[in-house]
Order: sequence, then C-alpha cells, then structure tokens
Amino acid sequence: MGNCIEKCKSGSHCDLKPKWAIVGGGNGGQAMAGHLALMDFNVKLYDIIPEKVQAINKNGGINVEGVVQGLGKPDLVTTDIAETIKDADVIMVVAPAFAHKNIAKACSPYLTDGQIVVLNPGSTGGVFEFVKVLKDEGCTAKVTVAETQTLIYTCRSDSFGHVNIFAIKKGVGVAALPANKTDKVVEILNTAFGEFKPAKNIIATSLENINSVVHPTPILLNLARVDNGTDFLYYFDGVSPIIANFLEKLDEERINIGKAFGLDITSAKRWYEIEYQLEASNLYEAIQKTEAYSDIKGPKNVNTRYIYEDVPMGMVPIAALGRLVGVKAEKYEAIIKLAELIFGEELLKNARTLENLGIDGMTPEELLKYVETGERN
Amino acid sequence: MGNCIEKCKSGSHCDLKPKWAIVGGGNGGQAMAGHLALMDFNVKLYDIIPEKVQAINKNGGINVEGVVQGLGKPDLVTTDIAETIKDADVIMVVAPAFAHKNIAKACSPYLTDGQIVVLNPGSTGGVFEFVKVLKDEGCTAKVTVAETQTLIYTCRSDSFGHVNIFAIKKGVGVAALPANKTDKVVEILNTAFGEFKPAKNIIATSLENINSVVHPTPILLNLARVDNGTDFLYYFDGVSPIIANFLEKLDEERINIGKAFGLDITSAKRWYEIEYQLEASNLYEAIQKTEAYSDIKGPKNVNTRYIYEDVPMGMVPIAALGRLVGVKAEKYEAIIKLAELIFGEELLKNARTLENLGIDGMTPEELLKYVETGERN
Repeated sequence: MGNCIEKCKSGSHCDLKPKWAIVGGGNGGQAMAGHLALMDFNVKLYDIIPEKVQAINKNGGINVEGVVQGLGKPDLVTTDIAETIKDADVIMVVAPAFAHKNIAKACSPYLTDGQIVVLNPGSTGGVFEFVKVLKDEGCTAKVTVAETQTLIYTCRSDSFGHVNIFAIKKGVGVAALPANKTDKVVEILNTAFGEFKPAKNIIATSLENINSVVHPTPILLNLARVDNGTDFLYYFDGVSPIIANFLEKLDEERINIGKAFGLDITSAKRWYEIEYQLEASNLYEAIQKTEAYSDIKGPKNVNTRYIYEDVPMGMVPIAALGRLVGVKAEKYEAIIKLAELIFGEELLKNARTLENLGIDGMTPEELLKYVETGERN
Repeated sequence: MGNCIEKCKSGSHCDLKPKWAIVGGGNGGQAMAGHLALMDFNVKLYDIIPEKVQAINKNGGINVEGVVQGLGKPDLVTTDIAETIKDADVIMVVAPAFAHKNIAKACSPYLTDGQIVVLNPGSTGGVFEFVKVLKDEGCTAKVTVAETQTLIYTCRSDSFGHVNIFAIKKGVGVAALPANKTDKVVEILNTAFGEFKPAKNIIATSLENINSVVHPTPILLNLARVDNGTDFLYYFDGVSPIIANFLEKLDEERINIGKAFGLDITSAKRWYEIEYQLEASNLYEAIQKTEAYSDIKGPKNVNTRYIYEDVPMGMVPIAALGRLVGVKAEKYEAIIKLAELIFGEELLKNARTLENLGIDGMTPEELLKYVETGERN
C-alpha cells in the first residue's frame, strides 16, 4: 500500500493490483470510478458536492453504459478527501485544470510516501503547479506527480450516478516528474487501463495542449455570438478560413517552443489527421473534415472552460515556457492580453505563470534537468 | 484666387466666393461637387478612375436627390489633378483616409500659396500626415491644411453621376494647422455650407474619431461571421453587452488621451446621445437605441474600411498620441496588435505612427505649440 511505485520494476509487467482514489466526480471521474470498480479494483471516489455524492450512493454506485457496461460499485464515495486518498496507490485527479491548485492543497496533509498522483489531464503545467503547491503547503511525503495529455475517456454523465463511455482512447501520453519515473507510472496505470504510453517529459505533455489552440481564440473571434447566446456550430461556423489560418500560425509558436526544448510536438492539423484519420492541406480543411464536429455547438455564454480553463491553464503557461526558452509567442501573448482586457484581471489571478509553476528564474537547461531528474539547482 | 484665406477677415462674414476643387468622386465627393455646383460655385471634381469621370461627364453632371435636388454641373470633371486644383481656393479631399498620403503626393507639385486643403474627414492625424508628406515631397507653397471631424453629408451614390443626400450634418467641427487659422477656414467653408464650426485644434479633430471605437473591435470579435459572409446586424447583433462594455473601456483611453492634451473629447455613448437624441445608461443601451442601426448589416468579408482604414488611420495614431502624452492605451494597443497578427504586417505599412505623422520625438508641449502656431522647435 502506498509504495506501489517502489515495488514495480520498470520493463516487466506490473503484477500488483493498485488501489485507486478518484478525485473529482464529473463526467470523467464517474467514468473512471465506475470502470475501475467494474474491473474489480479497489476504488474510492471523492467529490466536493454533497448532493452528487449522496445521489451516487443512493444509486448504489455508477451505472456505466457504452463501451463498458454495468453498475460499478466504488468502495467509497465521499466528500472526505482524507478518507479518499488514504491507502491509495494511485490518486487520479479528474477535474478541470483550474481546480488542481485547490485539490493539491486539500490533498497535501494526507499524502503519504510512495503515492502516485496523476492529473487527468494536466492541461499545461499541471504537474509543475501541483508540486509547487505541495511544497508551499509543507508536504514532505515522497509522492510522484504525473499528468496525462488528455482524459482517457470520451464520455458524458447526464445525471449523477450515470455515465456513458463512448470510447476509451488508446496511446494517451503520460509523463511524471521526474521523467525517469514515467515508465513506472505508466506500468502501474496500465495494470488497469493497458493503453497509456510514456511521453518524453512534462514539458511535452504540457505543450501537447491542442485546446490552447482551438478554444480561446475562436471564442474571442465569435464573442458576440457566444455572449448573445446565438446558435452556431463551434468549429464549422466559428473557425473561418482566416481564423484557421491564424490558429495555424499561433500553433507554430507552440511547436517552436517544443523544438527549443528538443521536443517534436504534434501540430493541431496533424493531431486532427491522426485522431480522426483524415488528410488535410491545412488546419481549416482538417477541422471541416472532422465529422465529429458536425453537431458541436458554441457555448451559449462566456462562462466557458474554453476561456476560464484554456487561457490561464493553457495559453499562459505555454507563452511563459516560450519566454523561458527564448521563443517569441506573440500570438499567444496577444490573445491572452485581449482575453484579460475583456474578461478582467480575475481571469489570470491563478494563471500558470512561471512563478506559479515554481520554475521562474530557471534557464532552459536547469528546467530540463529538473523535469528529467527532479533535481533543482 | 488662391489667397482667399488672406483676404478673409476672421469674425466678419466672408463675402468672397471661393473656387472649389473636390478630390475624390465617391459618395461624398459627388455629393459635394453636385451640391456646390447647384449653389453656383465654381467647382471642379477629380477622380482617379477614368470610367467614373467619363460616366459623370456623359451624364452632363451629377444628379442630386434628397435634401438637395437637381443636376449639378461642375465646371470640370477630370482625372487630371493639376487641372483640378489649379486656381482653386479650397481643395476638399473627400476620400478614404488611406488615400490621403497618395493624394498629398499627387497634389504637392501643383499647390500654390494661399490655398486651403480640407480633409473630409481627416480620420486621425490626417493633417499631420498631409503636411508631413508635402514637406517630404519638397512642396514650398504656403498652404493651410485642415480637417473635418466627419463628412458633412449623409449620402449614397449607387451609380456614377447620381447621388442621394439624405442629410447635411450641422455643427461639424473643423480644425486647421495651425489652430490660429481655423476660424478663417471655417468662415470660408461656411460661404457655401454655413454649418461648420471651429474645433479646438487638430488633436481634437483627431481624437473625435468614434469609428476607431466602434469599427475594428467588433469586426475582430465577429470575425468568423464576417469572414464567412454570414448575415448579421453589425451593431445590434455584433455589439453584445460584453463587447459594448469593452468598447466603453477602450473609449475611456481615447478620452483620457484627450484630457492629457487639455481636450474634452466626446465619449462614444455621449456621441450617440447627441447624434441620435437619445438617453442611455451605457454604450450598449445607446447602440441598441439607435434606430438608424436597425438595418446596418455587417460586412461580408474582411476587406472592409472598418479594418483597413480604422486600424492604421484611426487606432494606431490614437494609441501613438497616447504614448506621446504618456497615457496608456493598452486596449487600443491590444486590438491593433491582434489585427496586425491576423491580417498581416501589410495592414500597418502606412499606418499613422508618430513618425509617419512627422511628430515623433516631440514632447506634449512641443506638439501643442506646433498645432497652435505651426512652429516647431
């Protein structure tokens, strides 16, 4: 218990059966808790909302439909974070990125040596931030914090205790801090999921954030429609040729930042080609060819994660990593600035700046050493 | 001839009958040439497009409808700029602001002492730019350059030689460089128009540019619709509450720049209240109450003066004047930057920067002295 990572040898199949704590009972958290319970793992589910916890308990667990089916019965569904993470080998945080900071604070007193925390996903800089908060909170437990590139499920929960899993993604990248623990984390995750794969490091998982490309900018460039609640297809109507062209140039900044860190980051266009098995000559065409977008509508108001998550937890840390490594990200900066001016300084209050990630003042070499080894100068 | 301004004494009614040259045969230029001809003034009309000139000549003049009616017969309609401005007392430039520079170049060799050039309107910094270009071109003629705040006509020409004048605006502000010649210019203009009034100086006329507030930003924040040619009401649909709120904060920057120059600039909200005789608690309400906007649709593509005129000839010089006088215009700057990043550097190639206005390196005091007296240190 709590030291699974020490027992598991990299390279060989991990024969332990880890205990799981799921922090966050939204779409993804319920899917994961239900799925793990149906696979007979010991799993506990935490959510901050008492009504949700009560509803799931009243339901006797989580009804899972779709590619996984059955009534998954977690060992505990609770609003008690201490009980949730106690004795867990792996703590899966399945929550919006803007909640990570408070989750880190809430977990901090109860974490114990050997536990693994995985942010599903980390957005950009999730692990940096989580580790920084634990340090600031005085947490001395030797835990390994990791993040996935994206949530492993495509799923939706229309009511508490019911979730539909449309698909389980294959090959979702994972990276730990330090990177030399990534393989072990992947192995442990794959005792249940089978399909995670190691990413190079947490800079890679941070930069593989396509949302930072396709979310905030189209919201701004369709702001009247969103603010007025006008019906429109988010991608098909909202990403016009000129906007797609701009997004592609913005995307180049992200890719160039990756290059400066020695990383081969997937372009948004390429991501669509891989994810949706299509070919396109540019991003506009790629998006227009993505059939899954044919009924994705724009948000009906500006209180959307496309802004409140993807600007402060996506665009800000990407631009910040750019500054750290000396790569200009003026398109990222311009959109961040405009979003701040329109939505107010509050938007960036908890943004993942270099300072809030605990990596300000580092040289690129120092940062790379830190992500690879966990050692800081 | 050509020295009307010297003969006309400020304060008394000007009894001269000036000769007019109209440069630009668009909606406004045709309205003005037709109107002046119908008032029996000597008037010549220039346009750069031979087909337009031929059509007007074939028509025997300009058919004016609306609040002024009749066939106005200019003394000359030509593509020859030299012939047009020869012997004119007043040269009325009625053209998009982005054409002012080339018009100044074209006029430069033919201008003579005592002539008055009036930009209808100057957008922002029109006179500064015109004077700078004349100087760069080596023009030594002693001319007075002035600008109006807005075109005096509300009008539309649906075909060459035909124009409908819906209204002639009252109290349109005019300022000359130097400001101590403004009264004389107004007097001369009012021999024909009667309703111009002196503005404090060309910084005032420059800053009274409402278009810089209500044009580029809504285009950007409705960019997908404009780029896709989607039908929408430009003001009613395109300026949502959040956008109007942002425009109002952007507008404060313009007003604060004016204050720093000792000017009381009209806010956009107040402008609507005055212009359309309404009362509103904020800019959103003012725009929504403007009945004249009920059928104003958004442009169907991005090749619109709302971008190509109002960013480089409106927002850029306003932000530049802000920098000169030490007033932060970060909202102006943010929109300019985003427009440049989306539409390319070409957009700002001829932008009215302090340098292109010939006022870079000046202190606010030096600039004020220059606009008041025409003297530079």
